[in-house]
Amino acid sequence: MTDSVRTETDSLGAIEIPAGRYWGPQTERARRLFRIGDQRFQPELVCALGLHKVVCAQANLALGELPKDLVQVIVRAAEEIAAGERDADFPLTVWQTGSGTQTNMNANEVIANRANELLGQPLGSRSPVHPNDHVNRSQSSNDSFPTVMHIAAVRAIEHRLIPSLETLRGTLAGRAREWADVVKIGRTHMMDAVPMTLGQAFAAFARQVELGQERLRAGMGRFLSLPQGGTAVGTGLNRHPDFDVVFCRLLAERTGLAFTPNPDKFEGMGAHDALVELSGQLNVIAVSLNKLGNDVRLLGSGPRAGLSELILPSDGLSSSIMPGKTNPTQSEALTMVCARVIGNHATVTVAGAQSALELNVFKPVIIHAILESILLLADAAESFASNMVAKLEANRERIADNVARSVMLVTALAPHIGYDRSMEIGQSALLDGITLREAADRLGYVAPEDFDRWVRPDDMVRPGRSPAVRT
Amino acid sequence: MTDSVRTETDSLGAIEIPAGRYWGPQTERARRLFRIGDQRFQPELVCALGLHKVVCAQANLALGELPKDLVQVIVRAAEEIAAGERDADFPLTVWQTGSGTQTNMNANEVIANRANELLGQPLGSRSPVHPNDHVNRSQSSNDSFPTVMHIAAVRAIEHRLIPSLETLRGTLAGRAREWADVVKIGRTHMMDAVPMTLGQAFAAFARQVELGQERLRAGMGRFLSLPQGGTAVGTGLNRHPDFDVVFCRLLAERTGLAFTPNPDKFEGMGAHDALVELSGQLNVIAVSLNKLGNDVRLLGSGPRAGLSELILPSDGLSSSIMPGKTNPTQSEALTMVCARVIGNHATVTVAGAQSALELNVFKPVIIHAILESILLLADAAESFASNMVAKLEANRERIADNVARSVMLVTALAPHIGYDRSMEIGQSALLDGITLREAADRLGYVAPEDFDRWVRPDDMVRPGRSPAVRT
Amino acid sequence: MTDSVRTETDSLGAIEIPAGRYWGPQTERARRLFRIGDQRFQPELVCALGLHKVVCAQANLALGELPKDLVQVIVRAAEEIAAGERDADFPLTVWQTGSGTQTNMNANEVIANRANELLGQPLGSRSPVHPNDHVNRSQSSNDSFPTVMHIAAVRAIEHRLIPSLETLRGTLAGRAREWADVVKIGRTHMMDAVPMTLGQAFAAFARQVELGQERLRAGMGRFLSLPQGGTAVGTGLNRHPDFDVVFCRLLAERTGLAFTPNPDKFEGMGAHDALVELSGQLNVIAVSLNKLGNDVRLLGSGPRAGLSELILPSDGLSSSIMPGKTNPTQSEALTMVCARVIGNHATVTVAGAQSALELNVFKPVIIHAILESILLLADAAESFASNMVAKLEANRERIADNVARSVMLVTALAPHIGYDRSMEIGQSALLDGITLREAADRLGYVAPEDFDRWVRPDDMVRPGRSPAVRT
Amino acid sequence: MTDSVRTETDSLGAIEIPAGRYWGPQTERARRLFRIGDQRFQPELVCALGLHKVVCAQANLALGELPKDLVQVIVRAAEEIAAGERDADFPLTVWQTGSGTQTNMNANEVIANRANELLGQPLGSRSPVHPNDHVNRSQSSNDSFPTVMHIAAVRAIEHRLIPSLETLRGTLAGRAREWADVVKIGRTHMMDAVPMTLGQAFAAFARQVELGQERLRAGMGRFLSLPQGGTAVGTGLNRHPDFDVVFCRLLAERTGLAFTPNPDKFEGMGAHDALVELSGQLNVIAVSLNKLGNDVRLLGSGPRAGLSELILPSDGLSSSIMPGKTNPTQSEALTMVCARVIGNHATVTVAGAQSALELNVFKPVIIHAILESILLLADAAESFASNMVAKLEANRERIADNVARSVMLVTALAPHIGYDRSMEIGQSALLDGITLREAADRLGYVAPEDFDRWVRPDDMVRPGRSPAVRT
Repeated sequence: MTDSVRTETDSLGAIEIPAGRYWGPQTERARRLFRIGDQRFQPELVCALGLHKVVCAQANLALGELPKDLVQVIVRAAEEIAAGERDADFPLTVWQTGSGTQTNMNANEVIANRANELLGQPLGSRSPVHPNDHVNRSQSSNDSFPTVMHIAAVRAIEHRLIPSLETLRGTLAGRAREWADVVKIGRTHMMDAVPMTLGQAFAAFARQVELGQERLRAGMGRFLSLPQGGTAVGTGLNRHPDFDVVFCRLLAERTGLAFTPNPDKFEGMGAHDALVELSGQLNVIAVSLNKLGNDVRLLGSGPRAGLSELILPSDGLSSSIMPGKTNPTQSEALTMVCARVIGNHATVTVAGAQSALELNVFKPVIIHAILESILLLADAAESFASNMVAKLEANRERIADNVARSVMLVTALAPHIGYDRSMEIGQSALLDGITLREAADRLGYVAPEDFDRWVRPDDMVRPGRSPAVRT
Repeated sequence: MTDSVRTETDSLGAIEIPAGRYWGPQTERARRLFRIGDQRFQPELVCALGLHKVVCAQANLALGELPKDLVQVIVRAAEEIAAGERDADFPLTVWQTGSGTQTNMNANEVIANRANELLGQPLGSRSPVHPNDHVNRSQSSNDSFPTVMHIAAVRAIEHRLIPSLETLRGTLAGRAREWADVVKIGRTHMMDAVPMTLGQAFAAFARQVELGQERLRAGMGRFLSLPQGGTAVGTGLNRHPDFDVVFCRLLAERTGLAFTPNPDKFEGMGAHDALVELSGQLNVIAVSLNKLGNDVRLLGSGPRAGLSELILPSDGLSSSIMPGKTNPTQSEALTMVCARVIGNHATVTVAGAQSALELNVFKPVIIHAILESILLLADAAESFASNMVAKLEANRERIADNVARSVMLVTALAPHIGYDRSMEIGQSALLDGITLREAADRLGYVAPEDFDRWVRPDDMVRPGRSPAVRT
Repeated sequence: MTDSVRTETDSLGAIEIPAGRYWGPQTERARRLFRIGDQRFQPELVCALGLHKVVCAQANLALGELPKDLVQVIVRAAEEIAAGERDADFPLTVWQTGSGTQTNMNANEVIANRANELLGQPLGSRSPVHPNDHVNRSQSSNDSFPTVMHIAAVRAIEHRLIPSLETLRGTLAGRAREWADVVKIGRTHMMDAVPMTLGQAFAAFARQVELGQERLRAGMGRFLSLPQGGTAVGTGLNRHPDFDVVFCRLLAERTGLAFTPNPDKFEGMGAHDALVELSGQLNVIAVSLNKLGNDVRLLGSGPRAGLSELILPSDGLSSSIMPGKTNPTQSEALTMVCARVIGNHATVTVAGAQSALELNVFKPVIIHAILESILLLADAAESFASNMVAKLEANRERIADNVARSVMLVTALAPHIGYDRSMEIGQSALLDGITLREAADRLGYVAPEDFDRWVRPDDMVRPGRSPAVRT
Repeated sequence: MTDSVRTETDSLGAIEIPAGRYWGPQTERARRLFRIGDQRFQPELVCALGLHKVVCAQANLALGELPKDLVQVIVRAAEEIAAGERDADFPLTVWQTGSGTQTNMNANEVIANRANELLGQPLGSRSPVHPNDHVNRSQSSNDSFPTVMHIAAVRAIEHRLIPSLETLRGTLAGRAREWADVVKIGRTHMMDAVPMTLGQAFAAFARQVELGQERLRAGMGRFLSLPQGGTAVGTGLNRHPDFDVVFCRLLAERTGLAFTPNPDKFEGMGAHDALVELSGQLNVIAVSLNKLGNDVRLLGSGPRAGLSELILPSDGLSSSIMPGKTNPTQSEALTMVCARVIGNHATVTVAGAQSALELNVFKPVIIHAILESILLLADAAESFASNMVAKLEANRERIADNVARSVMLVTALAPHIGYDRSMEIGQSALLDGITLREAADRLGYVAPEDFDRWVRPDDMVRPGRSPAVRT
């Protein structure tokens, strides 16, 4: 159909573009050249790109680099992108130039076309608003795209991951308080050890999650540091000396996040160490949550031939062959997410390690992997909090039974009678299938009344004043 | 809207389902429980799932496990899935139960509903075709889902990756023949070394790709080995003794691929070592292609201040700030894909290493990562072949100039005058900025006529009979 | 002390060397330049280096490239290295030039000095045997070192890892036979599932190990393929046209291993895809053994509050605080080895992916990591076989009790009464704390005599003819 | 020889021990049970273990948990370990119980034996000083070993890695100042871009290193947080309520490092998230240094057919076949170390992710990998600083020539004449092989005098006031 395309021309030639689309020749050529996969940038990235263009135009206005009339339409067009109204005009996948240039040009072209349209010009007119000369004014893809990467990542951390972790932490802490007095057997090396409370176990999970939030914040100064202003190679060629400072100030006002100019633009464009660091912290969070998922699964194993100290919620799902089987489905979704995040970290590390000279050219894959990790961890943390942690029940009968039968209560005797005699008692109880109390008495090492005073599971869950040392 | 949903009931309760959808209660519950990310299984997986259900029904028919009338409608409904006509009825993401049970039940429910519809029954009737009793007959998710994983992976390798690698290999080999006589300087440690031909460099790339194909085929026996028939835990409970053999025979006939029953179903359900192995071979292919992408970029660096031995194709793309800059965009898309594949391999390894007892519960993330790697490598290999390798030009002038100026041609003298004197000549040439020939003459170690006979770059690109040894 | 050093001079200058050492100036300079870590090459690598030099000298003799008298002393000196008698003369660590040049020169210098000594010349005389002109004749570090890497890896696989895996496989298979009739509960998602035998579990472990051996052998053609003959960049400059073929023939005779010349030397020097592949297979073996270690630990957890289906051997070790606690120490050593092997694979992948132009310059770290993985897996497999697998006991009482109480036996009813009614029975049993038999009877779905006929754990561990389908 | 061994007996039996060694039965049994590899703990770990035991004894004294006479001999014996005098009495490898119990017991046994010896008792007397009751007083391996891990890691960071990075940073910064005015061509995507200074490149390297130091410090609060006091499972059973606080206070006094009690001992024993985090920061440092090593190699490539902007130092090493070839050997040692550190991070991640219940049982492999990474990075950074960075020379002639010929200087015209016309000029210059100035003039877009005013490489290396915007 002749009317379904229009022809646009830039300095590298003419090309047909779907008539209804705002993108231009650079985007269209890239769309044809990179027929690889279907992994699109997350909406969070496109939104950050829109915000970035808004703020760049405003900074250009503030510094007298662009006239007000152009800035106004550029801002209006860019705000549409920030609002998610132009997602369909970003057709490229992650697998393009490693600088993200095509996606930056995609934004420049969409904004120029839309701005010109708002000014009554046809798509493709490249005037009065030109994608490079005006929309990209004071910028290069080389400083803009990594700036957008940081903006998208920081916003996703602040608005998605940290709040989701807070939900999970709070839910865990609630269960910890609820179960503060449920004395259970501890397990080290998977083997029965000395008593603790179920609350202590859940408090430790909550603490892991809290430390994850702390880790994200510990790096925030480096994540908020933006290379905007480096332009082509880091020198800042073709931009106003104050562009970086004004840009960060305006961006901070707009987002409420304390973005600052990276004092060494070369560092922020040629390498992405800060994002490798961020990925490393996401990796730690995945490691933490993997333990959480696994531990809940283990404690909930059964219902009859497992540890069965927790009772898993019935979620209305079952085996396709074993009728009525309840599985720890949320643990599995969570730990699969963790495996993905760990793999994404390997991708980011490999991509970061291949930084070369003035430009790391793995930018799209880095930010795609990092946003995927952030968003998956956020979703999974919330799902696990509400669908698993909040609905677990403590199997108090089983828990009490396990404590009562444990041989490792003998540990409480060691400060009184020494390690070697305590071991004799434990071995004897285990071999003869008798209680520790009986064994202690039979061996003559501890009188029953002392035993009852010294071996009290409820007292064993915290430190206590020891008896005088035996020498 | 009251008419936009219907209520379906299974043994775990009633639930409202969007009226136009074929899925049932298990799918709907999962859709609500797992609000995590948006990563859907690739169409290749859904297609394999359809094929699997077709062949299961046929095997049940052959063994008298299901009556012909039910089998016919089940097959018809499953064929629609295999043909890609029901993709919209598979709403779940990867982040579900680690056995893939919900996606298996999704298929069972869609087929049952569609089959009953074909038989004139309303959706949700669960009769005459029951999702578990009939569609899932002789199966468990625990053997079916990993079987589907293998089917999807093998088909994607055979139909997508190996052919794409063949395109790339052929393109590289063509350039190798074309440039067989272009003598260039070799480089080791990035430093100038002795001469070789540009054809030899490209033949080595082609050889790497060919070995990648060989690696995929070397493991094919293990990839074709299917755990179907293990049912719930590997024992084969509730299936006909011959179900696995008949299933594989029918599947092989249908697909033209030599699938075989895994002799130890427990191995194929409890662990996914074969898929970790496959991922490892994809990792090698990524490593190979990373070198290809990087080497082409390096040889094409410039145009004036780089190695510039290759001239990169103009692809109509340019920098957003540096007018007319041509970049190795295809190398970057390719190497980003490689970074992703390497990360996916880490995901698969971590997921495989956590196999436990009778079931590995990281199945969805494993197959999603593997299919992503296969499909991305296939696309990227084709894109690189047609958009980069086929369009490269040799910069013969620069290449010849680099050979002429190289000091390492001195290596050809070593068999004649020994390593130590050869080094003296090279050092002298480098320090004094003169030619090797001049230095050799000045030091009195090699007469100019001998030099011209011994140091001939065209002869240095292959082994040759050495002079008598100097002792 | 003036007499504790000697001065040696090569074409790059003079340097003092410890008097008692055979190495020369290149080694000594490297020793001083690379003060990094203390990771030495494994003795297996040094031995392979000695073998390599022996065979190179013999090939040079066969082709008339070196006179017999020199070859004889070179061979004698190189045999001393192969026999492990010169390990103290290889002082360099892994952290040197990425081609392994210094270690190759170390061998050349030790052999030249020792050969000259055998011929009555002082150390450092460089005549009649010269390290480059004679010992390194027809070679470069660039083809020799990767050849040595392959030799060392293949020998370690054949002589260490495959036999150790065979020990482990045999031990596991023995327990599988022994426990073929011990019916236990299977577990999927860590939850109670349908019955199987303990023998089946151990047979699956044995199968995993067997497949590991198969994987190593599947790549052997590529591991046996040697780049020897490529010399400096892959062209074969300065070597006899038949050197590669004769070298491989002689090496195969000497080692009994079917080494062959790599048809594309560039591929074997510029990249190390074959070793990345080998590392990938070691990674699969680590994944397999990680499951083995974890499963044994889980099944042996307890002794009272765990699964306790296996009884762990007392190994004379205990907790430092909990007297008499027995831990699965061998599982932990094994799984730690697996974590190391998985990390080594990441190292090898990162190192392989950075291959550039005519030489991969991560050779030392690649072979060090691979040999470490091979040797650790071999040792850990043997240790686990003899100290854990061979000494496990089945806790038959606990195993039987777990089967008797399992609700999932209900699965056997599904082919008779359908999935939905079976679920009702299971749910009822679980909620009311009664047996399945009682629940089935109470609900009126299955008569007690049918129940006893249909639900027989001993029959559930294999497939069986199903009842006529219910429609 | 009968007198070469002695027999020691503990509660698990009697065993023969080499007569001259201080270790006891637990160590000896472990030595025999774990015949796996030869990877010993680094001396830094053994030293930290000695320090730990010194401070534990002092804390026990302060709290009245042990009498002064015992504490004095325990301290004296432990100080010998801290001083490195007992390394030969620590025979175990990393591959032991995953809690490090055997190495903790090794220390307990060595100290008890040595203390008893100092008190005139024979080895093996276990009295008056008992390894468990006194040396291990108030402790478990489960809190002590991870405490020792943190102590060793923090000391190695503070005393080895941060200072070495400071040396490297300072050396890089010095070159940056020295070369502040050397204008060179920048390169993005490996292609010629706009000018910058060589000083800017080295300042960016220095900044990367500085940020590496900052990253280590950002996590220090978590690295300094010690689980000491958790004893067996985290509860603190069998220790004084103030033991953790007193221990940390005394340790901080002794080491000058601000160690603090972990407020949640369960978190610090059951998981090792803080060490996974630390490993992640080492991973970032490896990524940074990998770029440094690669960039220096690239800029130093040649000497004639490479970029050749840097001249590599002659280090007295050369190729075994190509006489006089100088290679970037320090870059290769450095980047190999980086590959190792990245792999170690994978090991630590896999080990951390498998934390289970009250104890992560991958402690030895985690600390071994982390210390290896710290020490290798420290050594490699120093070696690269002194042997490479300090000795590089700028090839000013080549650098200037590359700038002069670059087509991308056209970028400076864009703010004056627009992106599209600038591209025309650049394309024309490249196609016709003329200068930009000629092309600009020929196309009539820029008068020669304007060109000379606008295109000044020396002015292009920093931002500048742009011309009025063209609309």
